[in-house]
Amino acid sequence: METSRQDRRAARRRERAESPLLKIPFRQLRNPLPPLEILASEQLEELHQASLHILETVGFDFLDDEALDLWQKAGAKVDRANQHVWIDRGLLLETIASAPPSFTWRARNPERDVFIGENSITFGPNGGMVYAANLDIGRRPGTMQDYENFVKLSHMCNVLHFGCWEQVTPQDVPVSIRHLQRLYAGFTLSDKAVMEAAHGREITTDVINMAEIVFGDLSGDPIIGDVINVNSPLRYDARMLGGLITLARAGQVCFITPFILAGAMSPITIASALAQQNAEALAGVALTQLVRSGAPVIYGGFTTNVDMKSGSPAFGTPEGAWALAIGAQLARRYNLPYRASGSLTTSKIPDAQAAYETLWTLWPAILSHSNLIMHAVGWLEGGLTASFEKFIIDVENLAMFYHFLDGFQVNEATLALDMIAEVGPGGHHFGTSHTQARYSTEFYASFLSDRQPYGTWLEGGGLDTAQRAHAVWQELLAQYEPPPLDLAVKEALQAYVERRERELEGKNLYDS
Amino acid sequence: METSRQDRRAARRRERAESPLLKIPFRQLRNPLPPLEILASEQLEELHQASLHILETVGFDFLDDEALDLWQKAGAKVDRANQHVWIDRGLLLETIASAPPSFTWRARNPERDVFIGENSITFGPNGGMVYAANLDIGRRPGTMQDYENFVKLSHMCNVLHFGCWEQVTPQDVPVSIRHLQRLYAGFTLSDKAVMEAAHGREITTDVINMAEIVFGDLSGDPIIGDVINVNSPLRYDARMLGGLITLARAGQVCFITPFILAGAMSPITIASALAQQNAEALAGVALTQLVRSGAPVIYGGFTTNVDMKSGSPAFGTPEGAWALAIGAQLARRYNLPYRASGSLTTSKIPDAQAAYETLWTLWPAILSHSNLIMHAVGWLEGGLTASFEKFIIDVENLAMFYHFLDGFQVNEATLALDMIAEVGPGGHHFGTSHTQARYSTEFYASFLSDRQPYGTWLEGGGLDTAQRAHAVWQELLAQYEPPPLDLAVKEALQAYVERRERELEGKNLYDS
Repeated sequence: METSRQDRRAARRRERAESPLLKIPFRQLRNPLPPLEILASEQLEELHQASLHILETVGFDFLDDEALDLWQKAGAKVDRANQHVWIDRGLLLETIASAPPSFTWRARNPERDVFIGENSITFGPNGGMVYAANLDIGRRPGTMQDYENFVKLSHMCNVLHFGCWEQVTPQDVPVSIRHLQRLYAGFTLSDKAVMEAAHGREITTDVINMAEIVFGDLSGDPIIGDVINVNSPLRYDARMLGGLITLARAGQVCFITPFILAGAMSPITIASALAQQNAEALAGVALTQLVRSGAPVIYGGFTTNVDMKSGSPAFGTPEGAWALAIGAQLARRYNLPYRASGSLTTSKIPDAQAAYETLWTLWPAILSHSNLIMHAVGWLEGGLTASFEKFIIDVENLAMFYHFLDGFQVNEATLALDMIAEVGPGGHHFGTSHTQARYSTEFYASFLSDRQPYGTWLEGGGLDTAQRAHAVWQELLAQYEPPPLDLAVKEALQAYVERRERELEGKNLYDS
Repeated sequence: METSRQDRRAARRRERAESPLLKIPFRQLRNPLPPLEILASEQLEELHQASLHILETVGFDFLDDEALDLWQKAGAKVDRANQHVWIDRGLLLETIASAPPSFTWRARNPERDVFIGENSITFGPNGGMVYAANLDIGRRPGTMQDYENFVKLSHMCNVLHFGCWEQVTPQDVPVSIRHLQRLYAGFTLSDKAVMEAAHGREITTDVINMAEIVFGDLSGDPIIGDVINVNSPLRYDARMLGGLITLARAGQVCFITPFILAGAMSPITIASALAQQNAEALAGVALTQLVRSGAPVIYGGFTTNVDMKSGSPAFGTPEGAWALAIGAQLARRYNLPYRASGSLTTSKIPDAQAAYETLWTLWPAILSHSNLIMHAVGWLEGGLTASFEKFIIDVENLAMFYHFLDGFQVNEATLALDMIAEVGPGGHHFGTSHTQARYSTEFYASFLSDRQPYGTWLEGGGLDTAQRAHAVWQELLAQYEPPPLDLAVKEALQAYVERRERELEGKNLYDS
């Protein structure tokens, strides 16, 4: 009895080890296909010119004194009373020219360093969701435990290049110390590259200090970074500017991302939204270079349309696909890496709509050579909810893209003309040596899609995709093991977090 | 009370008339983007050469005497005893050169004629499913009523260019008269272009006779057609050859489609599967031209992989996406129109997997310039089941592609630089004249995706995509009205069907 139980356990361990999901290695991904380009070069030039016109004649609000100083020193026209800046095209183009076209983003484990630029594609996890959802508990406010579970899953799923990025808001932790607890979890639960909030100077300084504890030295390739959102239209607020200036000064990564819903934060036409997006992104990129010439920076796009019936944002739309792919063309024009998004959807549950809207985002993101695809997993409900099941569904699709982009081989072995002759008309290839030698490695090995006959599927419970995904993430968490971390580093991180928690007690860093 | 009921009815009629789905006009669709090309030109040439090698050295079984006569007469090397043919590259390339690069497929309503070729994309319905499924009744053998309902839906959904194509097998009708009843329904319930079974000479002759009753004259542009499947590897069977020869002789459309599951009907490597597909398709294309030089013919691809765990076909895979897009490149190489597929999936229900596998098929199909996308709607379970809800989900995605391909406009009105200046930093564009003038027409108007806030969605029943799709097709069928048809034509069709039903009683055309 005991032996048989042990046998079953051993068999189960072997089965786990053979899970196709866990066999996927961590690696860089390149897109060997020419990029999808929506715009002809004359159209691209028109958008470019329109953006320069906006920069010069309409200008921006920069709600931060240091940012205004930097613009003034650089020679831009600044209205200090109204915190407004007009940027001449010569100044703009000259300033952004110092931004690196590519760079390496270092991870705690050097084998997990990430290359950003050229035709490289990297996937980052979901970020900023206020609710967590799974099939057991439904949808409820996110907790620190949810956050840690998402970091663990991000660590284990090798299709993702980053271990953490505010995957869900830990609402059971006081607001002003969340960044400390999140980043502590990120550095200890994963050895992949990390991202953490660049919300104002004080929080961002904490983030940089913790990175310094782990890496010892922040010179050289960057280690930490975050999105810098534009408060569209045409305004950079104090919180984002504090983050941008602090990150750029430390040589860390800003991904400058206007968040534009066409028809609300810009004119309704996508051409106009993109002219505005381009002006906004370039202004932010330029500011990083005024802070520190050569600072790593990524041009970001997050433009989609409003649903005109409900006034709600719409994701995974044809307009969103245009904006995403054209954003990549614009970034290439300025020789800047490009940040897009992946798993966008407005569906409330991981159903057909959630899947098709996500694929309406992923296909153009990948084909257009987006270098950093954030929110690549886990989105539901327009980004309000992080779903554990959706996370797994999205990982399956990312894994499929790895296989798709791996390149198509035409050579004597893959053409196998001898086998075609040998089997001949009306025969079958299932048992040939050529098939048998390749049957377990030739095709993408799905861990989620069900291809069984109807009867077998029904006998197995007739589970839908979300139910199968539920079993996958639970099994992953059951198998999670933390990556090694030097004890002294861990203790130093702990000490830093504890000290800062005491210092920040009762403070609200978000109202300052 | 009565008045208020009438008011409500009138309001309901207005609302129906405003349904975005019914407002979509029937129109030709073009893909203005350059085609997605997976292969470099040297790789394409290698596949081409490999195919010629197969045609010349391995050859094909053609299980039909007339086909063998045609090959012999053309100068191919023919082994009559083994019904085998080897085709020289010179003969092959010279013969396929007479196939038209494009043509118009006529519909009963000339406004619904369809252009096949160049960068035109057309969508055909599902075909050949043995089960029908919807959320009310589950999955059960297809009936004539299911068939008629699918024709009605195909007629009403203007994103589809064809009204009928064996959408589901009417299992309550005797096998040998199904084609008569199906095509009668197709001609009377829809005025779009039709497809019907080319299964052997007798059935195909019925189909052509019925088309002649409706159109009077079959000379000129074609009006009927069907898939001709290759019995891969390397065999054309008697049924398919009877259909091919009968259709081509009448100047009607064959879409020659090898059905290859790599690892079963071809070697496991996709390069080999495609070399074989190309040889098989070109042999069939050539045969249509030997029957009648200039006969309209479409190069088809239906190559995907086997799931090596279950031995079942796998659809919506990275390998399937490769095959589909490379098939288009091959067809273009020979200046032939290309047939692909759309809604492929192995999922048993219209869930997330069904949606993502479909989008893994549709994106490459559309970007690669597939001219005829069959099975564009309704697939479940590897093509065994036609689902009413999946049909609607797929129609939503096709409609999104119409919008996506409509082209991106950059001009003074769409750039709207004056509005960006007028609203300025921190303002909003919801109420501007520019937005208000365009709010109901600028964006793709979804009829299925839910973008409401979570609470509103939950109050409305918390329906998933399939449940909402269920309401959509039921509402469509309730509103269906048959297109006008000349009474004499209808009666002549009826008389033909009745006569042939008597003649075919007790016969089995499928065993002959």
